[in-house]
Amino acid sequence: MTETTRSLAPEPLLLADLSSPETQDLLPRIELVLVPVGAHEQHGPNIAVSTDTISADALCRAAAALVGLAVAVAPAIPWGVSWHHLRFAGTIPLRQSTLIAVLEDIVGSLYGHGLRRFLVVNGHGGNNAAITTAVEQIKHDMGVPLIASVFGYALIAEQAKMLLPPEAIGHGGGDEAAVVMAVEPHRAKPSAFAAPRLTGLQVETAALLRAYGGTLARRYDEVTHNGATGDATSASAEIGRQILDGAARRLAEIIAVVLREADAADESLAGMNGERH
Amino acid sequence: MTETTRSLAPEPLLLADLSSPETQDLLPRIELVLVPVGAHEQHGPNIAVSTDTISADALCRAAAALVGLAVAVAPAIPWGVSWHHLRFAGTIPLRQSTLIAVLEDIVGSLYGHGLRRFLVVNGHGGNNAAITTAVEQIKHDMGVPLIASVFGYALIAEQAKMLLPPEAIGHGGGDEAAVVMAVEPHRAKPSAFAAPRLTGLQVETAALLRAYGGTLARRYDEVTHNGATGDATSASAEIGRQILDGAARRLAEIIAVVLREADAADESLAGMNGERH
Amino acid sequence: MTETTRSLAPEPLLLADLSSPETQDLLPRIELVLVPVGAHEQHGPNIAVSTDTISADALCRAAAALVGLAVAVAPAIPWGVSWHHLRFAGTIPLRQSTLIAVLEDIVGSLYGHGLRRFLVVNGHGGNNAAITTAVEQIKHDMGVPLIASVFGYALIAEQAKMLLPPEAIGHGGGDEAAVVMAVEPHRAKPSAFAAPRLTGLQVETAALLRAYGGTLARRYDEVTHNGATGDATSASAEIGRQILDGAARRLAEIIAVVLREADAADESLAGMNGERH
Amino acid sequence: MTETTRSLAPEPLLLADLSSPETQDLLPRIELVLVPVGAHEQHGPNIAVSTDTISADALCRAAAALVGLAVAVAPAIPWGVSWHHLRFAGTIPLRQSTLIAVLEDIVGSLYGHGLRRFLVVNGHGGNNAAITTAVEQIKHDMGVPLIASVFGYALIAEQAKMLLPPEAIGHGGGDEAAVVMAVEPHRAKPSAFAAPRLTGLQVETAALLRAYGGTLARRYDEVTHNGATGDATSASAEIGRQILDGAARRLAEIIAVVLREADAADESLAGMNGERH
Amino acid sequence: MTETTRSLAPEPLLLADLSSPETQDLLPRIELVLVPVGAHEQHGPNIAVSTDTISADALCRAAAALVGLAVAVAPAIPWGVSWHHLRFAGTIPLRQSTLIAVLEDIVGSLYGHGLRRFLVVNGHGGNNAAITTAVEQIKHDMGVPLIASVFGYALIAEQAKMLLPPEAIGHGGGDEAAVVMAVEPHRAKPSAFAAPRLTGLQVETAALLRAYGGTLARRYDEVTHNGATGDATSASAEIGRQILDGAARRLAEIIAVVLREADAADESLAGMNGERH
Amino acid sequence: MTETTRSLAPEPLLLADLSSPETQDLLPRIELVLVPVGAHEQHGPNIAVSTDTISADALCRAAAALVGLAVAVAPAIPWGVSWHHLRFAGTIPLRQSTLIAVLEDIVGSLYGHGLRRFLVVNGHGGNNAAITTAVEQIKHDMGVPLIASVFGYALIAEQAKMLLPPEAIGHGGGDEAAVVMAVEPHRAKPSAFAAPRLTGLQVETAALLRAYGGTLARRYDEVTHNGATGDATSASAEIGRQILDGAARRLAEIIAVVLREADAADESLAGMNGERH
Repeated sequence: MTETTRSLAPEPLLLADLSSPETQDLLPRIELVLVPVGAHEQHGPNIAVSTDTISADALCRAAAALVGLAVAVAPAIPWGVSWHHLRFAGTIPLRQSTLIAVLEDIVGSLYGHGLRRFLVVNGHGGNNAAITTAVEQIKHDMGVPLIASVFGYALIAEQAKMLLPPEAIGHGGGDEAAVVMAVEPHRAKPSAFAAPRLTGLQVETAALLRAYGGTLARRYDEVTHNGATGDATSASAEIGRQILDGAARRLAEIIAVVLREADAADESLAGMNGERH
Repeated sequence: MTETTRSLAPEPLLLADLSSPETQDLLPRIELVLVPVGAHEQHGPNIAVSTDTISADALCRAAAALVGLAVAVAPAIPWGVSWHHLRFAGTIPLRQSTLIAVLEDIVGSLYGHGLRRFLVVNGHGGNNAAITTAVEQIKHDMGVPLIASVFGYALIAEQAKMLLPPEAIGHGGGDEAAVVMAVEPHRAKPSAFAAPRLTGLQVETAALLRAYGGTLARRYDEVTHNGATGDATSASAEIGRQILDGAARRLAEIIAVVLREADAADESLAGMNGERH
Repeated sequence: MTETTRSLAPEPLLLADLSSPETQDLLPRIELVLVPVGAHEQHGPNIAVSTDTISADALCRAAAALVGLAVAVAPAIPWGVSWHHLRFAGTIPLRQSTLIAVLEDIVGSLYGHGLRRFLVVNGHGGNNAAITTAVEQIKHDMGVPLIASVFGYALIAEQAKMLLPPEAIGHGGGDEAAVVMAVEPHRAKPSAFAAPRLTGLQVETAALLRAYGGTLARRYDEVTHNGATGDATSASAEIGRQILDGAARRLAEIIAVVLREADAADESLAGMNGERH
Repeated sequence: MTETTRSLAPEPLLLADLSSPETQDLLPRIELVLVPVGAHEQHGPNIAVSTDTISADALCRAAAALVGLAVAVAPAIPWGVSWHHLRFAGTIPLRQSTLIAVLEDIVGSLYGHGLRRFLVVNGHGGNNAAITTAVEQIKHDMGVPLIASVFGYALIAEQAKMLLPPEAIGHGGGDEAAVVMAVEPHRAKPSAFAAPRLTGLQVETAALLRAYGGTLARRYDEVTHNGATGDATSASAEIGRQILDGAARRLAEIIAVVLREADAADESLAGMNGERH
Repeated sequence: MTETTRSLAPEPLLLADLSSPETQDLLPRIELVLVPVGAHEQHGPNIAVSTDTISADALCRAAAALVGLAVAVAPAIPWGVSWHHLRFAGTIPLRQSTLIAVLEDIVGSLYGHGLRRFLVVNGHGGNNAAITTAVEQIKHDMGVPLIASVFGYALIAEQAKMLLPPEAIGHGGGDEAAVVMAVEPHRAKPSAFAAPRLTGLQVETAALLRAYGGTLARRYDEVTHNGATGDATSASAEIGRQILDGAARRLAEIIAVVLREADAADESLAGMNGERH
Repeated sequence: MTETTRSLAPEPLLLADLSSPETQDLLPRIELVLVPVGAHEQHGPNIAVSTDTISADALCRAAAALVGLAVAVAPAIPWGVSWHHLRFAGTIPLRQSTLIAVLEDIVGSLYGHGLRRFLVVNGHGGNNAAITTAVEQIKHDMGVPLIASVFGYALIAEQAKMLLPPEAIGHGGGDEAAVVMAVEPHRAKPSAFAAPRLTGLQVETAALLRAYGGTLARRYDEVTHNGATGDATSASAEIGRQILDGAARRLAEIIAVVLREADAADESLAGMNGERH
């Protein structure tokens, strides 16, 4: 593999753009496939139900454009594990088993085409357990050489904390609203921007269990009356562009580490095999 | 329900555009949800693997724009049942059980939000059996009042046959290429447009079994060497626009029949119940 | 394979008639296995719930008798996908997943014994989607060389249309009643023969969706008050014998095409492999 | 319920013989449904692979004819759990999960039609565990008032031991061959009748584990070289008729006990409820 | 394999006691793994819900201690198939499919580590069908050379019948209470020891069906008012020790037969293979 | 509920110790059930494969003893999700779906008996995703009022970091070894205590992905040559007792918060309902 395969490219490589012969030609140059996973779930009055899909997909595209042809982007999974938001209109959740099956089907077929490294980029916290389960099952059952996940929202929140007041950070908050305003402006609802209306219930329980690696299973209407936990009123498209730009650069750095260390691991394994023979 | 809810609207109503409170407000006016189902599968050298998703989604949006706020469009399912194309690079199929699970999750949650009528608009022939299974299971298990499917490609082919030579009609052919050129031009590959290279094997078998309501399970490489069965060389964006326009008008007419007869069936049922009491 | 293996035989080859050593001896001569799939569902007042099993099984036996030892008949599956008839007494449906599992088990084991070509002969329209799903899964998962299906009722209806008035054709109608009278006379109920009592609801919807390759999921009591859509009053055993005889001859012709083209496909593949070596 | 509903009848009541309205009329009189379960598995050189289906079905019909209209017979399940016979040609096994699903579908739908008591009559020992699992799941999940099973072969063997030498008793032996000769003579192969050729391996292990309520999972080719464990040479149709007659009378006696005690249990429960009010 | 590997050992070999390298070292010496399966279900007023787990585990440990390092004991499965006891407080049942999955996971992984022979020792009658299904599926799907089961309670009851009056034998009776008193005295409740309070319903039905290899699916509250069918009042720890000692000796004898005959079967197979080459 | 139900008790309340009537009597006093989940997986040369089960179970017992009769402990699940340790001898993993099923069965039945609040205490990091999935599915599907999880090892590591050098903390390290020495001394192997032998591969990748809420799916032999990542040489039983004592006190504090806030949430909900009426 030569350095040129990781050169900068202005446009991301999207699998959905390619014909089959084009895919065939590019396969040897693709070192990593990003699989964005979103959600179709309520985000309070501030932003559309497609928010997490927008942010995961935009983050993958931006990072892939930075890295170049070595990284391809699969079509985003436009729903996620959102059972806890079902009492708010518009939420379309997948069962955990359905999301796992979709990921198995996507990665399994691309692996069959010869691709070897996969990074699931997740836009919705509720997906984390199902995605972890899926990547571990895929690793064990299919023997895929590299399969990993990253919580894309953590990358966005990291940037947002430098650009927005603390109360803006949260579900349906200013961090997410800014990204939507930057990418799909008609899916942000600035005239309805509002602060969250929290129930205040079981706050210490949830924090304690999370601090000790656990979870309190709750419906979101047990958490917030208006569906949001962040305040969107400080969001702007410009801030959204800065968030996305910073998060994409960080993701590109992570990808560089992933590929470099995976190459090293492959060489280490080949070396061990070489010694044996 | 008043006629005004079915007035013309310039833009289709997309569920993904709405916030949760917006969805809540519109729920009483939505009489039907269109669920586009596509595929991510090889279409020969002519067009991108996303072709069937593009056409199903474009058809739903165009028809929904014609019908107005009474009809909403769910996010397209961007993969389908494409196991038979797996030997062509780039194909990402879902197992039949996965597609059925996704449809159950989508319709089940929207039904929970109060929506009552659903039309699956399918862009890929390979999906038909799984979709039929899904809509029947949803009808039986959930008691959804109206759930139906239509093969969107049949609507497109009907138009294309009036605008293109017979050899253009087929998988990866001029009919599909024209639609892609009209909607997502960068996903058509005119410089690679080619005629199909059929194997000529088991042609009579497949035709006979199809004529008598059956099927011959075949991988697509047993059918065609280059992945296409239609000739794309006569396609153009202008023809694509005409195909899509005609097909959307026809779909809007079908929707009108579906809604009118469903109203009548509801009244008939209410009448029978009324008589009893 | 010699022509004599396809000579006429007075009796069909039934797998259920054979001992294990007899099966072992015949295996090299069996080129195709017919798998009849029926239903156990209401057919109005005219005929027994076993009608579709009777017709699928009788059709397979008659065609196999015409073709000779090259074609064996598996035991009929005596139930099908009949959830929509459940409000009529006596219907015993399988879930779609159950029917698929049964077909996988039957074909999978026979494939393990060395048989290579399978034709599912389906007597009940409600089974078509599950059977299509099953044959495609079997093709993909097991690599069975030839697995296909035909809708046996389409063969019967083709004949019946030439022998009976149009209103006789339909569920529980004269076409089906005639076949039952010919094969299992005590399962026809001529003293109860009646015309269908249709609800008249959603007729255009169902026809339109079917015309465009789709389906309207409906319970059968939404279609007809007495469970039938065809008029049985013109049926007779003699007409049944003519229907069955014509349909079996047509099925035998189809089988001849299937086997001839499958042989050609095998030779073509062998030729391609030969060239390579 | 009057005594006349349990009067003798020359013909058994078969669900497959009835139209839907006939079923509707008879439903109040049917106190018990017999569900015969067979197998499609090798029985050595002596008899056809359908032996266990023949014997279970014949036993149900004969017992139902003795008991009268209070007992109906469902269509026989013509395959069973026979994975251990797969190395002998012709065996078609169901997975355990498939057999359980079929039983759930059959009993679940008949329970939905209003039937309340079910007795699975099993012709094949390999089915016992799956049937026990099925009847317990059906009892627990559906709340069916009475669901039970009996091993029909145990009834046959009980008679056979009085009519045949000890070495005749066993898989593919004289007891089973005699029943086949009596019911479906062309499925017995007297010219091939032979003694079993046992491997003699693990005999004490199997016997000890069975004596202490356990099982040794073995393929049948680990047990016998020719697929049989009983000697068929002493079988005759006349003995088969006597076996079947005796077994059917015993089954009818068991059914009488089942129904009498079930009535008593219902009354006891009603009494307890009555006291409370 | 030498005789010394089967020498007496004072302590049983428990897999849970070992580190991974210790396991690695012992693997070549382990000829059989015992897998105890218990239950967590009501046993009337007399003994704790963990009774069947206690007895299966104690029996395995005692027998393994007698046999020596050739036999290892896996961690006990502390629940079983107890749906029928759910109306009595404290019962925690597994679904049959869950128990089967647990057994597949345990045996499958140990087989992957190189172990080849497995004996499931079952403490609860309600588990027998699920365990039989599991061991047959494991044999067929994984090809495990030896997988078998024994009903440990049958071994216990055999001893108890020699030491206790007949009315003591039964669910929650003196036989089980004695074993609990011997092993986990605080889980016996002598101050609450009582005779069973049977309903007397369907007694002949249950006995008849059992005598003919079948089963009557019943909830346990249909059988007994206080949850027990045996009388615990004659139980003592001393009798429990005698029961356990006798049962363990019998199990050790069975294990000796199992291993001796399995060795012979392996040699026989090797001989056949040797002849062929 | 009175304060006395939460008084100190010297012994923990174990469900396995109780008879059914004892359980029935205690049900109204039990406010929370702890469900320990462990693993049966390699922990390097230092400690037995049962380490995580020991620590989860000991932690639950110690905390329950501190809290009193308001908290009951279910039998520990003695295996977990350990596919990544399979190349080290002795590991017995459950599939994720099996662990989820076991948790559903346990919590579902206890909920059926009237218990309302459940805390899964997990001893093994590999279980976290499956447990999160399970508790969310149980919350959504069964409507259990309170179901949550905590990673018990996080509680142990928190204490251990104050008592042991940094290099002792890790898989199979001094923290875990100390706890085993305190609880089940024969399952620690001090003569084999060793430092970990890490591969050094993909260290930055794993850390980065973890820092951003993701995961790198890896087999453990890709991480460490001897199966451990912590150094056990500084462990002692006394330190183990201190770790366990501190962790149990912290868990008891968490439980107090969980119960207090759950009471408040119930009152809040009751208040809202009261206002409506």
